[in-house]
Amino acid sequence: MFDKQYDIIVVGGGHAGAEAAAAAANMGSKTLLITMNLQTIGQMSCNPAMGGIAKGQIVREIDALGGYSGIVTDKSAIQFKMLNKSKGPAMWSPRAQNDRMRFAEEWRLALENTPNCDFYQEMVSGLLVEKNRVIGVRTSLGLDVKAKAVVLTNGTFLNGLIHIGEKQFGGGRAGEKAAIGITEQLTDFGFDSGRMKTGTPPRVDGRSLDYSVMIPQPGDEIPEKFSYLESHTLTSQRDCHMTHTSKTVHDLLREGFDRSPMFNGSIQSIGPRYCPSIEDKINRFADKDSHQLFVEPEGWNTVEVYVNGFSTSLPEDIQFKALRSVKGFENVKFFRPGYAIEYDYFPPTQLKHTLETKLVDNLYFAGQINGTTGYEEAASQGLMAGINAHLKINEKQPFVLKRDEAYIGVLIDDLITKGTEEPYRMFTSRAEYRTLLRQDNADLRLTPKGYKIGLAKEERLRRMEEKERKSASFVSFFKETSYTPEEMNPILESVSSSSVKQSDKMFKVFSRPKVTMNHMLQLEAVSAFVSEHNLDREVLEQAEVQVKYSGYIAKEKVNADKLHRLENVKIPDNFDYSKLKSLSFEAREKLEYIKPVTISQASRISGVSPSDISVLLVYLGR
Amino acid sequence: MFDKQYDIIVVGGGHAGAEAAAAAANMGSKTLLITMNLQTIGQMSCNPAMGGIAKGQIVREIDALGGYSGIVTDKSAIQFKMLNKSKGPAMWSPRAQNDRMRFAEEWRLALENTPNCDFYQEMVSGLLVEKNRVIGVRTSLGLDVKAKAVVLTNGTFLNGLIHIGEKQFGGGRAGEKAAIGITEQLTDFGFDSGRMKTGTPPRVDGRSLDYSVMIPQPGDEIPEKFSYLESHTLTSQRDCHMTHTSKTVHDLLREGFDRSPMFNGSIQSIGPRYCPSIEDKINRFADKDSHQLFVEPEGWNTVEVYVNGFSTSLPEDIQFKALRSVKGFENVKFFRPGYAIEYDYFPPTQLKHTLETKLVDNLYFAGQINGTTGYEEAASQGLMAGINAHLKINEKQPFVLKRDEAYIGVLIDDLITKGTEEPYRMFTSRAEYRTLLRQDNADLRLTPKGYKIGLAKEERLRRMEEKERKSASFVSFFKETSYTPEEMNPILESVSSSSVKQSDKMFKVFSRPKVTMNHMLQLEAVSAFVSEHNLDREVLEQAEVQVKYSGYIAKEKVNADKLHRLENVKIPDNFDYSKLKSLSFEAREKLEYIKPVTISQASRISGVSPSDISVLLVYLGR
Repeated sequence: MFDKQYDIIVVGGGHAGAEAAAAAANMGSKTLLITMNLQTIGQMSCNPAMGGIAKGQIVREIDALGGYSGIVTDKSAIQFKMLNKSKGPAMWSPRAQNDRMRFAEEWRLALENTPNCDFYQEMVSGLLVEKNRVIGVRTSLGLDVKAKAVVLTNGTFLNGLIHIGEKQFGGGRAGEKAAIGITEQLTDFGFDSGRMKTGTPPRVDGRSLDYSVMIPQPGDEIPEKFSYLESHTLTSQRDCHMTHTSKTVHDLLREGFDRSPMFNGSIQSIGPRYCPSIEDKINRFADKDSHQLFVEPEGWNTVEVYVNGFSTSLPEDIQFKALRSVKGFENVKFFRPGYAIEYDYFPPTQLKHTLETKLVDNLYFAGQINGTTGYEEAASQGLMAGINAHLKINEKQPFVLKRDEAYIGVLIDDLITKGTEEPYRMFTSRAEYRTLLRQDNADLRLTPKGYKIGLAKEERLRRMEEKERKSASFVSFFKETSYTPEEMNPILESVSSSSVKQSDKMFKVFSRPKVTMNHMLQLEAVSAFVSEHNLDREVLEQAEVQVKYSGYIAKEKVNADKLHRLENVKIPDNFDYSKLKSLSFEAREKLEYIKPVTISQASRISGVSPSDISVLLVYLGR
Repeated sequence: MFDKQYDIIVVGGGHAGAEAAAAAANMGSKTLLITMNLQTIGQMSCNPAMGGIAKGQIVREIDALGGYSGIVTDKSAIQFKMLNKSKGPAMWSPRAQNDRMRFAEEWRLALENTPNCDFYQEMVSGLLVEKNRVIGVRTSLGLDVKAKAVVLTNGTFLNGLIHIGEKQFGGGRAGEKAAIGITEQLTDFGFDSGRMKTGTPPRVDGRSLDYSVMIPQPGDEIPEKFSYLESHTLTSQRDCHMTHTSKTVHDLLREGFDRSPMFNGSIQSIGPRYCPSIEDKINRFADKDSHQLFVEPEGWNTVEVYVNGFSTSLPEDIQFKALRSVKGFENVKFFRPGYAIEYDYFPPTQLKHTLETKLVDNLYFAGQINGTTGYEEAASQGLMAGINAHLKINEKQPFVLKRDEAYIGVLIDDLITKGTEEPYRMFTSRAEYRTLLRQDNADLRLTPKGYKIGLAKEERLRRMEEKERKSASFVSFFKETSYTPEEMNPILESVSSSSVKQSDKMFKVFSRPKVTMNHMLQLEAVSAFVSEHNLDREVLEQAEVQVKYSGYIAKEKVNADKLHRLENVKIPDNFDYSKLKSLSFEAREKLEYIKPVTISQASRISGVSPSDISVLLVYLGR
């Protein structure tokens, strides 16, 4: 039926699958995206938002490499916020609210406009494997489709089981079927699988809410955007709103605890620690009488509303009664109840850095199947799996990002080195070098790499190079140009910074904490330079960060270089750890299982101690 | 959980359910729309088009009464055509191609903007019935929701079984779950149920087609619209394309006939006669070497394409191979295969004219559950069920349209009087008085009625009255105003119509077949009248029809009046037919089962002969 062999088949059309298919196709692979429902490509299964702390950085990284998540987010955004703007630039995190329907539509159109990307609607029920190498997939109707590589991005669909109170039913998402067959087959191949759990809050009718008693949460006055390319910028935005739970709400929820699948033993698997259900929050933080709830609109026009912070699998009647006690929700009407879902995942220590499985060649996993949570985490894995599947079948070097190069590098290294027993979510604290991994410089960090592997387009590289050149020249300008005390002191006075006695280079005073680019722009020479060189907001931001945080950045670069030295100590394939008698038993076991590629990676495996690393270094001749 | 009792619950959110919910809510009933998936409200399950012959008239009727189908179609149209414009006005039929995603989105937004209409996502698995009266529904999670009336619009979901070749699987549509429980319960209540079958063609990748060898099918140069209200008019349109099957294609399809569920006995139920599968066409019309295929875009931007005319449940590989032999489809790529679906329906003779079931009070059925096919047929039944459910619970007179008042009247009267053993589709030939039931006058026929029952809004009535007044005055103008032979003869000459010798009323010459409004507008007095009274296209069309077809229209009115006399002979409730020994056995059986309300309805029951009617008339004292 499919008359040719595909290069790459991507199973699943969520954030991971969509990025995987886009990357593989854009790099030139004949790609087939198979999904159970073509109308749910790019579906936001949980909240209608992209980005946030650390996650916003990931979206920027995906964009910098040539992925689509940033562009799709920009096109469908209804609100944009740069979080943590009051903190250092390592913490600045872009976040957008999205129109759920438009987001999915833009994803689908983006994929349709990608040459080499074909589509097919059907459930994949198994893999075709020959001599430990995947050669295609089999659909539930018995159709075989051949390919050189396969990327699995099954999300919560593998044996998905939905829980609401005491009720359970099979499903990949509310109203959608679960996928069966794949887990069983992979287990037969020797894969370990486990169960994870996630949940989602009720969706309610915005017409039934009293927003007047909630706190509006507007977007930024001057909204930015995700993509480094020229893309859609918001001209109007929709507000979110904030409200709170109360003791009464908690008491009402507690009434359902004995019927909660979380507490009565029905759900054994572990949910996302940092995205807990409301019952979990009440249980774990029993002393807290109130939790924040964010009321997020689901789109430009729809009245459907997402109740962020109220994820729950309590019985419907309990969800309802409790939510009715929340300020502003006194007359709430439900569109759909919250629920929990359990699904199969495969501990990601079974993967290489490329996201290829160790057991079956040319088979890649991305997204929740690897035990992660979050759209951004999924999308970035999909991107990397798509890239690496393409590179492998073309016999090219794998594309692996280091921990000091990208959050994506941290994410994948954490997954495959440490594994995860609960849904893994990215945080800035997971990155050793987060001052380097900023949202403002993802293009500078990654676009040249994305271009080199053939994913990022010329235009993207050109824009990045221009930004780099302009920022550098602007930074040089600050280093070379002097102010006069006459022009500088009024500005310093306005921010209560001590005055200067004599002329000096601008760089110095600009480095003071209270002095910002906006202040510097008050100097005639600075504003003249900006006009003359036509510097845009992005360049201004970049130069500001480079001037003001140059010390931190330099220090982290030194640290990162130290890491690179350990990164450079490779451990040979199939290294025989049993020879090293002085390794601890646990270290040997873990090392044999994970098969780290470098000493650096070995050092991050939990259970491998510094003394184990010394043993290894001595043996490897250092 | 639902703290109040609803007035009306509508189960299902397709064309029937959406219209039912909108009508009930707009008339003032607290309405709850329950659907298995809130994201598929207003889904076009089959082709992305609304209207067509007889069906376009129905959409106009729905609009005239105050339903939403016309408005939603206008907002999401990508092409508009008035079919049969070369024939008499009874045959003129509006048809639109639609953007599938936009259509669903507009439906959902329309419902969200309807006060009194609530939403809930869940599967309804049973009805709550007390003393032969429905009092609510039970969801699959065990939630009871109370209401005074329930409208079931389950489409193809009741025990839906999808067939592709030898494969079968449960589902309400491809990729969606079937609904279980309701049929079983209704059967327990004593309802007869049956199985019907319908099918859909493959969706393919438009990027893989060669349109240059197909025949473009553009929309009208000056596109009209469906709604009588001011609504969206197209400023640009997308083309469809036509191509043909061939002997080769048929031979390839025949290769799969032994694996066809249609021919190997897997599917026993009957499909839509006038929307047959391609294998059915080949089989039934073995002498035809070619069938038309219409290639319909699925939206403004998507590359997905609907292959109208190629509905099939042959195995996927056969579908594919055969379609590849169609001109322009040599390199076609599939998005999803065609399939057949079997589902439960309830023979509609179990319903009253209001679409209320005879067995369970306040329970209404609309759409495919009644054995019909087509979006328009479904939507109009939903509208009527919603209206009548509202009227009944408010103890108001039922709203029933007669056969000479609307296609909707013909449809429902056919269903409940004659029943149907195959999916029922509307045709102009089903209407005795189709000259009266035109697309141009649905507002004149129905808006006053829609307004009277509280559904059509003031604005709608005002527009209709203005159109009526202006058309009437324009017709009078033609009756009263004379032409001179000097101005008239050049026009007549241009259409080769015999010249006139002397001045006469314009009406007379305008009645000639070859003389159109455009010709009449060349007369100075006519164009002056049009400008002076600011007559729009709709009024011009209306006046033209009334002038040119006045003879036909008058004649049909006389016939319809005769029908009304029979309509006025009511048959008492629970009339005892066993008293009338001279009735044929078959007639007595049918009459007892159908319980016709009038002699006219009795006369339309198949098996009731003119002599049976005479017996009845004599007994009833005529």
